[in-house]
Parts: sequence; structure tokens; C-alpha cells
Amino acid sequence: MNTFGHLLRVTTFGESHGPAIGCVVDGCPPGIAIAAEDFAADLARRATGRTRHTSARHEADAVEILSGVYEGRTTGTPVALLVRNTDARSRDYDRIAAQFRPGHADYTYWHKYGIRDPRGGGRSSARETTMRVAAAVIAKKWLRDKHGVTVRGHMAQIGDIVPAAHDWSAVESNPFFWPCESQVPALETYMDALRKSGDSVGARVTVVADGVPPGWGEPVYGKLDAELAAAMMSINAVKGVEVGDGFASVAQAGSVHRDEATRAGFLSNHAGGILGGISSGQQVVVSVAFKPTSSLRLPARGMDVDGNEVEIVTTGRHDPCVGIRATPICEAMLALVLMDQALRHRAQCGDVGDVTPLVPPQA
Amino acid sequence: MNTFGHLLRVTTFGESHGPAIGCVVDGCPPGIAIAAEDFAADLARRATGRTRHTSARHEADAVEILSGVYEGRTTGTPVALLVRNTDARSRDYDRIAAQFRPGHADYTYWHKYGIRDPRGGGRSSARETTMRVAAAVIAKKWLRDKHGVTVRGHMAQIGDIVPAAHDWSAVESNPFFWPCESQVPALETYMDALRKSGDSVGARVTVVADGVPPGWGEPVYGKLDAELAAAMMSINAVKGVEVGDGFASVAQAGSVHRDEATRAGFLSNHAGGILGGISSGQQVVVSVAFKPTSSLRLPARGMDVDGNEVEIVTTGRHDPCVGIRATPICEAMLALVLMDQALRHRAQCGDVGDVTPLVPPQA
Amino acid sequence: MNTFGHLLRVTTFGESHGPAIGCVVDGCPPGIAIAAEDFAADLARRATGRTRHTSARHEADAVEILSGVYEGRTTGTPVALLVRNTDARSRDYDRIAAQFRPGHADYTYWHKYGIRDPRGGGRSSARETTMRVAAAVIAKKWLRDKHGVTVRGHMAQIGDIVPAAHDWSAVESNPFFWPCESQVPALETYMDALRKSGDSVGARVTVVADGVPPGWGEPVYGKLDAELAAAMMSINAVKGVEVGDGFASVAQAGSVHRDEATRAGFLSNHAGGILGGISSGQQVVVSVAFKPTSSLRLPARGMDVDGNEVEIVTTGRHDPCVGIRATPICEAMLALVLMDQALRHRAQCGDVGDVTPLVPPQA
Amino acid sequence: MNTFGHLLRVTTFGESHGPAIGCVVDGCPPGIAIAAEDFAADLARRATGRTRHTSARHEADAVEILSGVYEGRTTGTPVALLVRNTDARSRDYDRIAAQFRPGHADYTYWHKYGIRDPRGGGRSSARETTMRVAAAVIAKKWLRDKHGVTVRGHMAQIGDIVPAAHDWSAVESNPFFWPCESQVPALETYMDALRKSGDSVGARVTVVADGVPPGWGEPVYGKLDAELAAAMMSINAVKGVEVGDGFASVAQAGSVHRDEATRAGFLSNHAGGILGGISSGQQVVVSVAFKPTSSLRLPARGMDVDGNEVEIVTTGRHDPCVGIRATPICEAMLALVLMDQALRHRAQCGDVGDVTPLVPPQA
Repeated sequence: MNTFGHLLRVTTFGESHGPAIGCVVDGCPPGIAIAAEDFAADLARRATGRTRHTSARHEADAVEILSGVYEGRTTGTPVALLVRNTDARSRDYDRIAAQFRPGHADYTYWHKYGIRDPRGGGRSSARETTMRVAAAVIAKKWLRDKHGVTVRGHMAQIGDIVPAAHDWSAVESNPFFWPCESQVPALETYMDALRKSGDSVGARVTVVADGVPPGWGEPVYGKLDAELAAAMMSINAVKGVEVGDGFASVAQAGSVHRDEATRAGFLSNHAGGILGGISSGQQVVVSVAFKPTSSLRLPARGMDVDGNEVEIVTTGRHDPCVGIRATPICEAMLALVLMDQALRHRAQCGDVGDVTPLVPPQA
Repeated sequence: MNTFGHLLRVTTFGESHGPAIGCVVDGCPPGIAIAAEDFAADLARRATGRTRHTSARHEADAVEILSGVYEGRTTGTPVALLVRNTDARSRDYDRIAAQFRPGHADYTYWHKYGIRDPRGGGRSSARETTMRVAAAVIAKKWLRDKHGVTVRGHMAQIGDIVPAAHDWSAVESNPFFWPCESQVPALETYMDALRKSGDSVGARVTVVADGVPPGWGEPVYGKLDAELAAAMMSINAVKGVEVGDGFASVAQAGSVHRDEATRAGFLSNHAGGILGGISSGQQVVVSVAFKPTSSLRLPARGMDVDGNEVEIVTTGRHDPCVGIRATPICEAMLALVLMDQALRHRAQCGDVGDVTPLVPPQA
Repeated sequence: MNTFGHLLRVTTFGESHGPAIGCVVDGCPPGIAIAAEDFAADLARRATGRTRHTSARHEADAVEILSGVYEGRTTGTPVALLVRNTDARSRDYDRIAAQFRPGHADYTYWHKYGIRDPRGGGRSSARETTMRVAAAVIAKKWLRDKHGVTVRGHMAQIGDIVPAAHDWSAVESNPFFWPCESQVPALETYMDALRKSGDSVGARVTVVADGVPPGWGEPVYGKLDAELAAAMMSINAVKGVEVGDGFASVAQAGSVHRDEATRAGFLSNHAGGILGGISSGQQVVVSVAFKPTSSLRLPARGMDVDGNEVEIVTTGRHDPCVGIRATPICEAMLALVLMDQALRHRAQCGDVGDVTPLVPPQA
Repeated sequence: MNTFGHLLRVTTFGESHGPAIGCVVDGCPPGIAIAAEDFAADLARRATGRTRHTSARHEADAVEILSGVYEGRTTGTPVALLVRNTDARSRDYDRIAAQFRPGHADYTYWHKYGIRDPRGGGRSSARETTMRVAAAVIAKKWLRDKHGVTVRGHMAQIGDIVPAAHDWSAVESNPFFWPCESQVPALETYMDALRKSGDSVGARVTVVADGVPPGWGEPVYGKLDAELAAAMMSINAVKGVEVGDGFASVAQAGSVHRDEATRAGFLSNHAGGILGGISSGQQVVVSVAFKPTSSLRLPARGMDVDGNEVEIVTTGRHDPCVGIRATPICEAMLALVLMDQALRHRAQCGDVGDVTPLVPPQA
């Protein structure tokens, strides 16, 4: 189950401190222009080591295209991408190889497989998400060029701090993907204090897709929102997913929640752009909850592999808030799900004639 | 995409007002004792027409076993279950056949397929969930008999009302699956007023599984929590899914969230029983947000299939709170996901020796 | 694994002597005109009891459409088809319930599942193929109406008798799907003698598809011919599959086998219309070997479930040559594979511009 | 569709003259001992350039393990294997980049994708099979160590030459995998003459598995023989697949074909070890037809991409009989199918108690 998607299928491999990580993107339409340098921007947005607010590990994240591209264009055969690990420090993990770090997959992998690669979390490390972001570079490009669909995201909460304003133009100019420029200094101070304390905090990320036409998605078990939920929940440290108003819908009246429509457009978007599992032509909106990092230098009570109680201290390089780098990862999963659904829609419903939306895209 | 699961595969079919609904449960282990009457209890828990707080439609929900069972036991071949629709009133829908009800799949199905069955919502009706509950009767039985795993659930919020206490023994003795007996009269009053007003409200349902051993689930894209998120989000009207503390994790400190462990057991369960996508041996906890019903007799602004603005009033039989009947449906999806993962775990890791949990199941 | 196909997915269920057999056809494009009576012709071609040369079992094979069709057209939701079994005589099988008939699945099902439905072979009966033929009625219709692709077949060998001539117009006017009218009386005599002897014989069936455009199929593991091979081999009693010249290619020279091409068309079709797993625009040609029926009234040495050696005599109603009714079944599998591949091709390569074949379809 | 298998899933990537080829083997049970040098023997058996009877291309075929193995054992996470291409001579293909070689996938890829990598056949080259053989090294090891199942094969026909005797010990000591030592000099002479003539010839390969217990396989669409047929037909140049007696069954009487059984074992194995899609405990026997190589220096009539008729001469390095190196490839596909089915069997039927075969494995 290291493969994601139905028609656009992404298979990732690799451990945090192994020789390399990589992916195979199968099912790509032919003719998409792709070069090794196209991956740099999004990988840098996801990377550690760029600011003091993330882990100090500094990976080159150089992508080698091994197959599926000929003279700069995809050929329809599988695109394989490879990234060598260059800054792995496995000795950091010697001490905890026989311990189960609380809140980590150490314990569950050990019980499942009877064996585990303890170096940097092995396969359970967020290092794997590098390849999701790489694969999604292709998906984002196709969505934009073929359908005019754009995918973007921002941080929507850190700890109990929420944005005071929403300004897309601010998002990419601070290390937090924060949509309110004036709060950034306070956030820096907050994160500095947190890092100093040795503790960590959770985060909420919101990603949206604009330009999605009505009709993408499948009823019942292949619902667009169901696949988005799985895609987001498959990201490390995610504990919750919302579409549109999400849990706020619980306390809403139906007369408020149902999005009325006029010739000028929908009057609201409580649904987050999805009805009955199919896109409505409105903005697709997904929010994701990230738990606080579990790897702390603050000691915790835990167990070792021999069943002894031990005090566990984690001294490797870690993010005080994993959610900070999560925006491009959530965008990636959104893009991959949308492209897969777009291909499936074309397969089944390619003959359905008029696709001009009766209600104009988001008012 | 009307099939759910990898090794235990449930395919459902049928429309709300068609002749029948049904499912095929493929991949069942042989030897499970199943009789037609085994389905009655859970189908009744999900059914409408049993109290004044749900839709007045009254279906017999009689299950016919068409295949896969011989002399009272599953044979390993596909189990097909059939339920005839007996109380469909399609004339209720004549007026809205050419209109798109706000908050409904009418508009998105029409754009996707260019054709739709308007009778009772057709395939997008919650009637489909009947067969999920039926299929899960087999899964619940296997989980309990083979692994001692039990699945149960309760309502955790209606509108802005939350339980004042948590008493499992209260849940099955009121029409709301509410875990606090003393609040039930107030809830009845609340629902009566809501019904009279013509409006609707959302709900939150929590389901749990006890006895899940450590090791079920798969890393990366087949994570237990990822599949639970998809399973829950695939239920009609769901807008959010949480595992463990869910969105509350955002504001937590890592030193609080990470569940420390001792020889006596885990000291907390913020994770909801899943780490790295794999069960930890703790109680698996999933919460689900249901939006308020969109079918209201209160008029709304909307469109018809010719692009005209129209006032839309829905007069069929509807639930004022779809979440009320959702508890058995969420339980069903939890049971189906768990059984599928249990079979997959056995396939890959059937040789892994000692499976005695190092940390005892939930303290 | 009772589901076949990737985008057009057919799930079948039902046992030979259970209450019913049925199928769910998922992924159908919307708008295909389908009525219950459309299934009659092909089901009759496959049915037993129509001539003395097949089993005497006489099933009505009346198809009920349970879902997925509204006002005579597919809606894009799953089409469920149901056929009640009306002429099951389970008492015929009482004696052999504890025995393993040689050449049958009795022994392997028993070892696999530890339990089996012995009535008429249960799930392993060719009765299951009824639903393949039914499902393919939809596929044949879509292929013809949308792409001008026609699928047909004929018997190509019975025992050691091969057709003396090839005349498509003869095929449907004799009970053997035999393409040479003048041999039919001799075949009738041959089959009468065979039936009287109590023995059985094998058969070879050839099916072809005309009008398949170049480009259907997928390289490597989803090759058109690989999926055809699986589809044919999944039919009961099949022991071999050939594409184009098949095993005759072994003794051919490359200079003969490779199909040269000119502006007027290909000069030969040794390849059977498939190169590199993808259709070439030539006629797709597949041949299938059916073993002789194993159910004979001639006694055989075998085992019972207690490990005793027993003499086994099978007295139910059986075909002396299962291949006789196999032509519509092979056609069905060819049609289902082609439609599935056509949908997949549209998904991935829907943007590839010019599809006019450089070499005209079969010269 | 570059992924093969259900629970043991092999995804391959790479073109003949691209930088590398590779595969990801997902679903491996944990704990299998694997080292880079384990791949050498089977890769050498498949490689070109070892004798004058195969293509002169000489690849190092050095396997790098990128993931999924820790301290010499599989961890249950995906095993990625990489092989760099070291002897690609793309200039050989400049001339034919705009031509469609007869009998090749050039024409069909071009129509499907509108673009193709012409260097050495790109993805359609048999170079891809290197990674199947590599992946199957793991499967063969697991089958042998865990179940005592062994997989082997031999050439069964070249052109119209068939083995005069069957001696397994001869197979690995000649370049043709030929089971009769005394015929080898004549074969060498035959191949030398063929090579000199510029023509090519087909071949038939037979592979067998010993020790397969009864019960592996799944009824209906996941039949063991159906998956073997797909697996073999997915190999480049394959035109036919037989299980057991295959097409010879057509002319057999049922009283001959059905394999009778006694306490001492089965009296024959016409079925090739599979009944109803499930293994019977007998030797599994599969035969595969390879067409003659289409790449010849003998001129042929063909087309170019502009629709002109051209004379096509292929001057790259090619095998005069692709079947010569096919034995390890067919073994690989047999091993991969068997391991996948073994895992699936354990998933569904892991509780079925007694698995001692009633009939002893092959008499």
C-alpha cells in the first residue's frame, strides 16, 4: 500500500536514512513538459533547514528523472524520480533503536513487522512526503495547463493562534505560510520560545483548489471528499480532515448550511465545493489538523523492546511544529487526488456533452 | 467506485426508489455462521420510521441471502444480499425532477452524468447505507468471534448540545444514541421544535473499537486512519473526520499529546489508538461530523435544469437530523475497515511471531 | 476476486443451484439505452437445453434490472442484473457431496475453503458465465454504437474435426457455431455418438473484434493481450489461449511473422491485431482451448472426503462438449476487456490529437 | 498499469536506453534475507552478451537496493531495486526514429501516445524484464524457504526442433536451457546458420512449480491459471499460453483428460496442477509461445511517421531467438503469481484448519 491513486498512480519508496527516496508516477498523460528543475520550487517550500523554525537537516533534494520523459515531455510510460539522501545522521538514533518513542510509529511498526529500521523513523518519517510533493509537481502542471485549475494553501492555526486577516499575497513571504503579514513577528517570537522550551505544538492547514469544474468525483466510495480525506489523513501527523465548514456544520441550521444558488453564482460555500462526492464548480476547500511533534528532548515515560519502562529523550533534529512545512504537502495531495479524479471522469463521462456550469464558478 | 475495501470488498448497488438495493461481500473467510435474521437488529437501528424524529418512510428491510452461504455458513464465495424497496413514493419527487435542491447532489450528478434518477435522490440517497450496515453485520461478527474486537458508537453532539455525561448503557435506550439518559427529554423537545420549524441541524457521532491488537493497518497510503477517514467521509452528509483528539490536537503541546506508556498501559489516548497508520492496541476512536439535512420545506433560492432561478421547497419525507441514524452506519464503516485491514495484516505479516502487546491494551 | 475489469468493473455472484445469480456492472458511461429484453438473444445463445447437444437443464434466464437504469438509459451508477435459478435439481448431487469428481474443482475448493456447496458445482459451475454474457451485452452495445467495434466468434475445432471452410454466415444457423454448413450433419452424428458413449471431447473457439482502432491497450502488465489471456483463461474449462498465430509462431521465421505494412494496409495479420500490448487497427484475433467435460457417467477412480478410494459416476445433466456453448462466453470476455481498455485509453490519452490510423484498418 | 500483483505488487519503470531501470516490490513479508548479490545469478541467466546466440549488448546488471531492507532483511516496507543502463547505444536507432518497424510496438505506441522514445524500443524493450527477474528473486526465495516450492523451466521447442529427451540436469549447462544435452551441438549449428541468414525464429518455453500445496488460487476472475496466463502474455513477444495439456486438450476425450486419483496420488496431470482456478497439489505446468524476433537486417515493407512507404532494415543488436533468454523470465512470472496467491490465500483462508492434502503431491 505504498501506491496512491487509481489512474494516476504514485508509488513511493525509501527510508529517512536509507540511500535514497523515490517515486514512480504511472498513468501520466503523454506530452506534459517536465524537466528536473521543475521540482525545485515546491521541494524547497517543503524542505527542512531553510529557516531556524524547522529541523536543521539540510537535504539537497536534487531530483533525477530516471524514466518516462523523452526530449522534455512525458511519454505515457512511468515517470520515475529519484532523490539521494545526503544529510542522514543515523548515529543520532543509536540510543533509541531499542526504545519506543511515545507518539511515534516505533511501537506499532515493531508489533506489525517484528523488525524495523530505526534510523530517523525509517519509512514512517515525513521524509517520504518529499516524493509526494515531487509527484504533485506534475499534477499541478497538468491541472493548470489543461483545466485552469490552481491549487494553493496556507497555515490556518498554530497552537491557539489564528490569522487576524486573510491575504494570499502574504503566504509565500514568511516561513509559516501565514496569511497575515502583521502577525509574523509575533509568530517568530512564539516559535523561538517554543523551540527553547523543548516542546512542540500542532497546526491547522487549509488548502483550496480554484477552477475545478462541476462533475469531478464519484459517488459512494470514490467520492472526491472521501479520497481527499484519505489523502490528507495519510500524511504524517494528521489527526483530522474537514471539507468546507467541517465540524462547524454540526451546530449549523440546514437553512444556513445549504448553499443557495442564483444565476450570478452560489450565495455561499459551506459545502467546500463538493456535493454528493462530486465537485460543484465552487472552490474546493479542505482543512487538515496536524498534531504536535512527538520527538522532544523533554523526557517521557515509555518502554523498550525488552518490556522495560525507560525514560525517553529524543535528541535528533526535529521540527517544533511539523505543520509549518505541511502546506505544500497538503497541496500535493489535493492536486494528486484532483488529477486522478479528472482522468476517471474523462474515462466514464467523456461523452457527456455540455459541461458549461449552470451556476457560474464561485461568485 | 461502488466497491469498498481491498480484501474484504463490498460492492453496493441500488437507488432510493428503484426496485431493490443490494450488496456483494467478496473475500469473506469461509465458515462464518450467517442467517437472514442476523441482519435485522442493525438494520432496525439504522431504519427510518421507527420514531417521530426520523423520516416517516417505513421500509421492511428484509434481507435475502442470494449466494455465498451454504448450510448456514459462508463458503468463501461472494455473499450477495438483496433488500427490496417497499415504501418508495416517487411522486413526491415529480416537482423537483427539473430542479436542483440546494445542498444536494442533484446539481453535481446532472453535470457529471448528463442524466439523473431524481426519485428520492436516486443513488445519492442515504438509502444506500442500508447495505453498508448489512455487510458490516458479517464483519462485526467475524471481528468479535475471531479477534474479540467490538465496535460501538454514540451521538456526541446535536446542534450545540453535547452530552453531560458518558454512559454506554444509555446509548441504545433512546432514539438518539445519546449517552446521557437525563438529557433525552430535552433532546426530544429540541427535536420536536426543530421539526415544527421546518429546519434541520447537524450532528457529531463517535465510534470506537475495543480489543484491536497492535499491528493492524499499513504505512503510508493504506494507513488505518486514512482508510477510516475515507470510509467515514464516504457516508452521505459527512463533512469532517477526526481520529483521537482530532482538531483539538492543533492547540495541544507535544508533551501533552504524545501518549506515554508504562508496563501498566498507556497513560492517555490522544492518538485514538493509531500511530503511523497502525493500531497501537489502544481503543480506536473516530469522530464524524454530519451536516444538517438540506431537504427542507423552508423555501430556498436555486436553479432549474433550464438555467432559471426558482424557489425550491422540498416536501418529501426527510430526517430533521440525518446524524440521528448515523451511529450504526459509522460503526459499519469502522468494522469493514478493520476486518479488511486484519485480513491484509495476516497476508503480509502472518509469520511475525510474538504478538503479545508489550503495553497492555488500554489502561 | 469475483470482480473483473478496472474501469468497467463486473462483479458476479451466485451458485449453480442457489436462489439466483447476478452481477453488478460498475463504471458504465451514462446514457446507454438498455432494456431487460436486450439480454435475451445472447443468453439464449449461451443457454443449455435448447438442443440435444447440450445439458438438458432449461433455465428461463430472465434478467431483472435492479438499478442503474432510469427511463431506459444507464445513469452512470452501478447496473445490477438478477437472474433467478428456476431449474436446479440439487438431489442429483446428493451422492457426490462427499466425493471429489476427477477433473473438477471439488477437491481444490474443499482444500482451500474447508467447506463447499456441492450442488451443481456451486460457484465453480459454468452457470456463472451467464452473468458474464449478460454484462457483455452492455459492452457490445457501447462498442458498436460508440466505436463501430463488433465482436463475434465461432467454433474452430471439436475433437480433431476442424472447419473445412470459413463462412461467417453459417455460424449462427447451427447449434455448434460452426463456420462450415456442410459439415454440420457429420458433427451432429459425431456428437450423438459421443453422447451415447458417455464420454466427452474438447473444443477450440476463435473470437475476433473488427473495427478496434489503433491505441487500445497498455504496455507491460496491462497489455491488451495479457488481459485477454486472463479473461479467457478465467472461463471454466479453458486450458490455453492464443493471440493471432499463437503457438504456430514458434516454428515461424521472423521474416514471415512480422506483419509488413503499406499504404493500402497490413499485408498479413500474424500478430492478431496487437503489438506491444496495444491494438494495431487490425482485426483482434483470440483462440481458446476448452478441455473435455469431466462429469461423465463412465466410472472413474477418485477419493472421498474421508480419504477413501471410491468409484465415481456423475449422473447429473451435463454437456458432452462444454465448448459448444462457449462462443458467446468468449465473445463476452473479449467485449468486456475491449470496453475497459477503451475507457482507460480515453482517460490517459484523451488529449492525443490525430487518431486517424496511418495504415488503414485490415486490408 | 506498470504494476503487477495484488498483495505482492511489483512496479517497474525504465526504458531500454534511459539512465536506469528499476522496480518497487511492495507487500513483501518482513524478515526475508536479501542482499544485492542474490540477484546476480538469475540476472545473468537472462542477460544478453553472454554467448554468441543472443544480442551483443553487455549490461553489468548491477542491482542497488534503495529501500526496504535493513541489516540484510526485508522490513515490510517497499523494496526498491535500481539497475543503471551501461551499454546503451542510442545512435543505432537514429535512422528508425521516424519509421515503424514491422512487428514492433513502434506503430501502436505512436498512435496511442502521439509520442515515443525510439531508443532501443524504449519502454517496449525486453530490457524491462530484467526487473521482473530481479523482483522474482525475492519471490523464489520466499516460496522455497517458507513453503518448499521450487520454480524452474526449460526450452521446449525452437523453430520446429523439439527435445529428444527430458533431463533437468542438462538445462543449465547449455545456452538454450535445452533439456537434452545431445541435441545442443545441432542447436548451435542451427542458430549459427539462422544468425548468418539474418532471420529469426520462435520458441516455446515450459515452466513448472513443484511443491505447491492444494488451495492456492481464487475462483472466477482471480484464478491461478488466469493470472498465470496474464503474467506470461505480458512478457514481450509472447503469443500463447497453455496450462497443462493446453491446446492438446481439444482433441482429448474426457475419460482421458480428467486426472483420476488414488491414495497413492494422481494418476496423471493433464490439468497442469490447477482445477477450478485453484492448485491441486500437483506440479503446476505452464507453456509459453514466443514469436520470432521482428528486428531483422532483412529489409521489410513498412511506413514512416509521415505516411510514406519505406524499406525498413534494423541494424541494432538483436537476438535471433528471443525465446532463448525467456526461461528465467517465465520462471519469474510464475514465482511472482504464486507468491501473490499464497499471500491472498493466507489472508482469506488462514483459519481453515487441516491442510494435509488428501491426495499426496504428484505421484
